[in-house]
Amino acid sequence: MSTFYAPSLQSEQTHYQLSEEESKHCVKVLRMQEGASIELINGKGLQALTILEDAHPKRSLLRIESSVFHEKTPPLHIAMAPTKNMDRIEWYLEKATELGLSKLTFLLCEHSERKQVNTERLEKIAIAAMKQSKRFYLPELEGPMRFEDFLQSHSKGYFGHCEDGEKIGMNGLKSTMPFLIGPEGDFSPTEIAAALKSGYQAVEMSAFRLRTETAALLATTTLLPE
Amino acid sequence: MSTFYAPSLQSEQTHYQLSEEESKHCVKVLRMQEGASIELINGKGLQALTILEDAHPKRSLLRIESSVFHEKTPPLHIAMAPTKNMDRIEWYLEKATELGLSKLTFLLCEHSERKQVNTERLEKIAIAAMKQSKRFYLPELEGPMRFEDFLQSHSKGYFGHCEDGEKIGMNGLKSTMPFLIGPEGDFSPTEIAAALKSGYQAVEMSAFRLRTETAALLATTTLLPE
Repeated sequence: MSTFYAPSLQSEQTHYQLSEEESKHCVKVLRMQEGASIELINGKGLQALTILEDAHPKRSLLRIESSVFHEKTPPLHIAMAPTKNMDRIEWYLEKATELGLSKLTFLLCEHSERKQVNTERLEKIAIAAMKQSKRFYLPELEGPMRFEDFLQSHSKGYFGHCEDGEKIGMNGLKSTMPFLIGPEGDFSPTEIAAALKSGYQAVEMSAFRLRTETAALLATTTLLPE
Repeated sequence: MSTFYAPSLQSEQTHYQLSEEESKHCVKVLRMQEGASIELINGKGLQALTILEDAHPKRSLLRIESSVFHEKTPPLHIAMAPTKNMDRIEWYLEKATELGLSKLTFLLCEHSERKQVNTERLEKIAIAAMKQSKRFYLPELEGPMRFEDFLQSHSKGYFGHCEDGEKIGMNGLKSTMPFLIGPEGDFSPTEIAAALKSGYQAVEMSAFRLRTETAALLATTTLLPE
């Protein structure tokens, strides 16, 4: 059964009209006919099973047969400096969405080489991964925001850096805490000091030197609730 | 300092001659001159610090100043059915190499759509990831081999599948055991039965539907020794 992402879908709706783009995809591309079953998900826990009532190429109408609300998955918040190469952010987001990421914040750090991300494109990737992995929640994308500002809004959590210093192991981390991953050039000494002062714990992530997106993925799997 | 992969490097060598291709890269591309420091790694634990003694465009000679043998990292063996899309295998291998993978076996399963992999290209990717992550061991690539044959050579381990049935959690898995990941179409009921009969434990990997390469990466991070 085909699944459509319907962010505006509400639980009390009896009908849902596909956008012009979705209608075209449904009727012209997928060649769906009246009576076909279509699944809708709103990315906020709501799943609806619908029947295509009016297969209109621009304004298809779906009749909602039943809907289910799925409990929110546990928080899993990664904050990372975007990598130079967008592909690496994109595949990280795809994988992390499949695994259960709930929020991704992009950080602007002293050593950040990339200051901007194409959020629209990233959201498309997250939506596709949400559908593919049969999740009902779309991860929230935030930022890019300045590292200092993030510390203001989140005073505690975990982070990885390559400098020497006291670090805790990867076991028993609280999955509700944000995990911060620095840019290719690592967090600056100033940023490391600020994070520690704020209440962040430095984590010994690996015996090897991990790429930014690999570190982010390891942080993600480590924070997965058991 | 530039690092060259020197698979034939032995601990008792005093000199090492770069291949024609390496010499060209060293002298023509990197423009290295006599007296330059070059690191050699053989992918089997040996690291040598050398000096470029003869900067020859085809037969550069390095003088080995010192060499260190690094203890073998713990075994971490993933056996997966290659994905339809080679890109997904390639990034999995890059990430897994950074994280500490020691062996990757490609499995031919009933539902495998891809029967062959470009091992030469994959080895290049693993070598680059080994250098980048500052590892001294190159993961071994094996196969593709038939699923049944793998069970013959490895009678116990873990595997993930999407069918119902008794499954264990992801915690406390023995990192020395191989972890099997099926193709896009999942392991067949026959394969699942054969694995269980042989002594494999089915693992509940995620609440969501993971892509083959995402499952392989999750298995990899889960088997990382603490």
